[in-house]
This record gives sequence, C-alpha cells and structure tokens, in this order.
Amino acid sequence: MSAIDQLLSAISSVNDSVRAEVQNLLDCKTKPQGSLGRLEELCCRYCAARNTAEPDIPVKALVVMAADHGVAADGVSAYPKEVTRQMLLNFAAGGAAINVLSRQVGARLLVVDMGVEQAVEAVSGVRQQRVGPGTRNLAREPAMSEAQAIEAIAAGARIAGELIDDGVTLIGIGEMGIANTTSASALVAALTGAGAAQVTGRGTGIDDRALDAKRAVIERALRLHCPGSDRPLHALAALGGFEIAGLTGVILGAAARRVPVMLDGHITGAAALCAVRLLPGVSGYLIASHRSPEPGHGVALSEMDLEPLLDLKLRLGEGTGAALALPLVDAAIRVLKEMATFASAGVSERSDH
Amino acid sequence: MSAIDQLLSAISSVNDSVRAEVQNLLDCKTKPQGSLGRLEELCCRYCAARNTAEPDIPVKALVVMAADHGVAADGVSAYPKEVTRQMLLNFAAGGAAINVLSRQVGARLLVVDMGVEQAVEAVSGVRQQRVGPGTRNLAREPAMSEAQAIEAIAAGARIAGELIDDGVTLIGIGEMGIANTTSASALVAALTGAGAAQVTGRGTGIDDRALDAKRAVIERALRLHCPGSDRPLHALAALGGFEIAGLTGVILGAAARRVPVMLDGHITGAAALCAVRLLPGVSGYLIASHRSPEPGHGVALSEMDLEPLLDLKLRLGEGTGAALALPLVDAAIRVLKEMATFASAGVSERSDH
Repeated sequence: MSAIDQLLSAISSVNDSVRAEVQNLLDCKTKPQGSLGRLEELCCRYCAARNTAEPDIPVKALVVMAADHGVAADGVSAYPKEVTRQMLLNFAAGGAAINVLSRQVGARLLVVDMGVEQAVEAVSGVRQQRVGPGTRNLAREPAMSEAQAIEAIAAGARIAGELIDDGVTLIGIGEMGIANTTSASALVAALTGAGAAQVTGRGTGIDDRALDAKRAVIERALRLHCPGSDRPLHALAALGGFEIAGLTGVILGAAARRVPVMLDGHITGAAALCAVRLLPGVSGYLIASHRSPEPGHGVALSEMDLEPLLDLKLRLGEGTGAALALPLVDAAIRVLKEMATFASAGVSERSDH
Repeated sequence: MSAIDQLLSAISSVNDSVRAEVQNLLDCKTKPQGSLGRLEELCCRYCAARNTAEPDIPVKALVVMAADHGVAADGVSAYPKEVTRQMLLNFAAGGAAINVLSRQVGARLLVVDMGVEQAVEAVSGVRQQRVGPGTRNLAREPAMSEAQAIEAIAAGARIAGELIDDGVTLIGIGEMGIANTTSASALVAALTGAGAAQVTGRGTGIDDRALDAKRAVIERALRLHCPGSDRPLHALAALGGFEIAGLTGVILGAAARRVPVMLDGHITGAAALCAVRLLPGVSGYLIASHRSPEPGHGVALSEMDLEPLLDLKLRLGEGTGAALALPLVDAAIRVLKEMATFASAGVSERSDH
C-alpha cells in the first residue's frame, strides 16, 4: 500500500448521528429553533467531525505553508518572486497580517517553508520542510514529480498529526507563494472540468494585460498535461505547488484524526479539492471561512458543497480569512456548552405548538 | 431647546479626512492594497468615527434593552408575551445566547428593563429604566406618548454616556421583546414609505396564517397613524417600543461622544433608522453586523447605506449578531496598529508600478 493509500485508509466519514444529536440539543436551548442559523450548522458540523456531542472549546492552530512557483517567470503576478521569501521572513518577524490575526483569535501559528527558491537559513519561527527550491514552470513541464507531491502530502499530514498530538482540535490553513493563484486556478479547472476563463482571476491585483496572459498560461498548461479530474495526484503534480500539496496533506492528516480544517481562500480551496478528489468523505471535515473574489474559488466551493461563513472581499491569503472565521467555531461550541435550556431557565416554549 | 434637540446638537459628523489618512496607512502595510477588503473599510470607518488615526483596541460593551408590546395581544408572535420577562431573567442568570456570546467576545453586557409588563424585582444584572409596563397596542392607538419616546431616548443616551465615561469605545446593541418585529417593521415602513408586504417577515418563526395577520396589523397601524417619514419622533411614539426608543437613544448618545455602534438585526435597524431620520450624519457612526432574514431589515439597511459584515441567517436578536461581529473591529484595528510596512519589513512592492 502506498503512503497515500495508507493515509486515506485511516480516514473515516464524519458522524451524522452525532450531527442529529447536537441539533436536538440546540433545539432545547432558550431561543427559537434554528434562530442561530449558520452558527448552529457550524456547531453540528464541528461535532460530527469530532465525533462527539460533548466537545471542548476548540484548541486552534493555523498552518501557513510557503513555496515558490516556476510559472512566476511567465508574468502572471503583480509582485516579483522574491516576495515569497521576504514574506516568509515577515511571518517569522511577526509583522504580517496573519501574525496579527492569529494573535487576535488565539490560534497558534506554524509557518512552514515547503520550498521557496532561496532557503531561509534557520530562522526561528519557520519550519523547514522543503521539497525543492520552488516548482518548475507548469506551463512548460510538470510542476513537480508525483514522488515530490507525495513527499509534500506526507509532510503536511505529519505536521497535522504533530499539532493534534499537542492538543490542537481545529486547524486553519493558509499559504504564501507568488504566482500560486495560477497554480490553484489550473488545478481547479483540471479537477472540475471548468474552462480557464471560468477559474482565472486577478490574484493580488493584476491588470487586464496580465490577466489575459495568466488565462493563456492556464490554457496552455491544461492542454499540455491533460490532467483529468479522476487523477488528482497526477493533476497536483503537474499543476500544483509544494505549499498546495503540503496543505492537501494537512487536510488529510487532520481528517484522519477527526480534526476539522478551516479553509482560507482560493489556494487552500484548490488543496482541499485535491483532498476531496482523493477521498470524497474528507469534505465533511472542511469548513469554508470566506468567499474569495477569485472566480475559481467559487467553482471549487460549489464542487465540495461548501458555503463560506464570511464574505469580506478578502484577497490576501496567508490564512487571514481562516483566522477571522475561527472564533465563530468557538462561539458555536460555547452556545452548545453554555446556553440554558427552556426547562432549566423556566422559559415558555412556543404558544402555537 | 428640547431634550432631543440638545442631544442632536452635540453630534458631529464623522471625520472623512481621518478615513483617508487611515487608508493611506493601510496601503503601506505588507499586503496588496485593499486586499483585506471590508476589514480595511471597517478600520477606516471606526477611525473616522473616533476621529483618530491612532486608535486603541476597542473597549466593547453590549447594551440589550427589553420591553413588552401591546400589539402582542393580536397574535403576531409565535411566543407568549411572558417570554419577554422570562428571557430578562435568563439574561440576568447568564444562560441566554447573548450572555454566552458577549463572554466569548470580551464585551461587557448591560441588560436594561425599558418596560416589560411585569417588573423584574431588583434582580442583579438588570438595570431598571422602565418607561411603563409595556406599550399600548399600536394597531389601535399610539404605542406611547411622544413624552415617553423622549424619556426612553434620553435614558438610552444617558446609558451610552455612562458606558463611555467608563472607557467603552464601541457599543453593540440588542433587544428582547415579544412582538417587536411587528413594531420594527411598521416603523421601517413608516420611515421609508415601503409597503407592509415589503417589510413583514416571520420574526421568530410564525406560520402563514400568523404572517397574514401580522401584515394586516401593520397595514392597519400605518393607516391609523399616517406617520410620515419626516416626523421620526411621531412615528417612533406611534409604532415603536420602549426598547426601540431606548436604543435610538443609545445610538444618539454614542454618536455624541464619537463612539461607533454595532447594530444587530431588524429591530436595532429600525432604532437606527429613527436616529438617522432625526440626524442623517449619525449613519457614519453605525456598523451593520449581520443581514437578518427579515425583509424589513434589508429595507432599513439600504436606506442607511449600510452593508452588513456577516450573513449567518441569524434571527434571534438579543444582540447576538452584533456580538459575533465585534471581534472583526478588533481585528481591523490590530491590522492598523500591528502590521509591518513594506519599508519596515524589507518587502518589495509591486513590480508593475
């Protein structure tokens, strides 16, 4: 059995009877049934994943993976490639948006170098898990070998397992990698059959000319690799990035331990779609934090039947949307644990029932 | 000068040059310009209201006002009238959703009895500010006198002032009052010219028959009082509730001290619309937390040019939506205060500029 098959065989589906049990408990709380809307759904979803109707308040971590992309050479981003490494150093120094927001929401932050072009030398606060010095240009050749994709997935799963060993029960994910919306869009197209035009957006803010170039790059890549939606590992290797494959691994590793994963935007959505294509039952472990303006994100979300919690027009990545949505899970679980019932509080129920 | 005129004369418009200054500061942070989307807007809005580009992290309070409504006698709610008082006791005991969520977000909770039918005797945790034992039936006579509306507004403004004296810099508002969606819908119709059908919803979950009755009640009330959108105090007295008038006062009192107010759903939206009709510049101090499924809420929001942060299908009230959105303000302010700039972090700017 391959490493991936071994990982997949450890994953059970979420527990739907726990979901129903939790909804019954919520229906006894002092509020009209269902009146906390999506917060109630979120509570049920978390509990079904955790396989318990008596969850603790989540212990939260954010995993941010960074890597460089060969396709950046084709002018698909508004930023120079060096920014990936510079931002990794910014993460290590604590000055990036995700540092601020993970502090704000009380989530431990783990930053992982999955393969930026020029390694960051032993900076405290950056875990080294480099698969290589960035991927090759997916518009010309496979971004990585399948062996590298498997290596990245295994590393991600191992990292998730370590966090869970440390007591983490909810993992948010994020990424950094100049040109990685190109990779994510190509992957979503490959795994859903959507056309390049449907999945290509402006990333961090490219102009019309660059948008045309980006769409052409994605079209060329799809023609070159003919990935096919039934071969997710092949698609991931041909079109993905080391950080994307790593995040697919984090998701699989978390699901294997019944820990839900809070997605961020488009790139984490592509990583999630790879995981779901490898094993459809993984989708029950996923929570969509926000709706990115990237068109490919909407395609991936609807394919996984996920509805995001926030719509704040975020297009930064790094896990910022995931961070902002994590406290909603805390709130949902607290409602279950701390609210009074109609009986305990002496509140009358509906008069028309 | 009347008490209301005095209150209104103390309110200045928000500072648009601070807004521009804060956006400039955000544009220097290590992220693509505008990529934190509505979080950036929120930061600018908070600072423009507070009149400073160097804000502290907000000190948060939630004010929940409760009162009974004479119109409950007409069968417009799924719950018996006693529930208002029972829930007030539940708030005092700490078992309601708003208790859980205000703890979760670190907001001080102040529960105010603005006039439930049967007074709650000196329960710790409930402030007595009773204008009367519930309003009269707005479908048959004015819900309250204009003097009572002014008394409630003044009480709300005083409460806001006390909180601000204690250091609060961000106030969320919520309410409890069986039948108060009827009152809020009638008010929104009166203040916008919308028809009863456009503003009437199912509240906490009434059936089709009760929905028809509720719409008819609102139509009758609008015909009876002919309120006119240019006489907000008259409309508030004829169609409002003591808690709604009190919340209008909280908003005006907060705006007078340059403290922004996080709205909850439909009922707080109606209170806000009264405040904005009294003085249009107040809208700059308002933040819409979530989009209620109540149709009248959408009418009021678009009238005030407010776009909610969350869309979680909440229909509970109590300030639960406001509570859930308060941490987004903290996050927005932390981004301004704590993120590195491109220059300080040594990160390259866009290559196409």
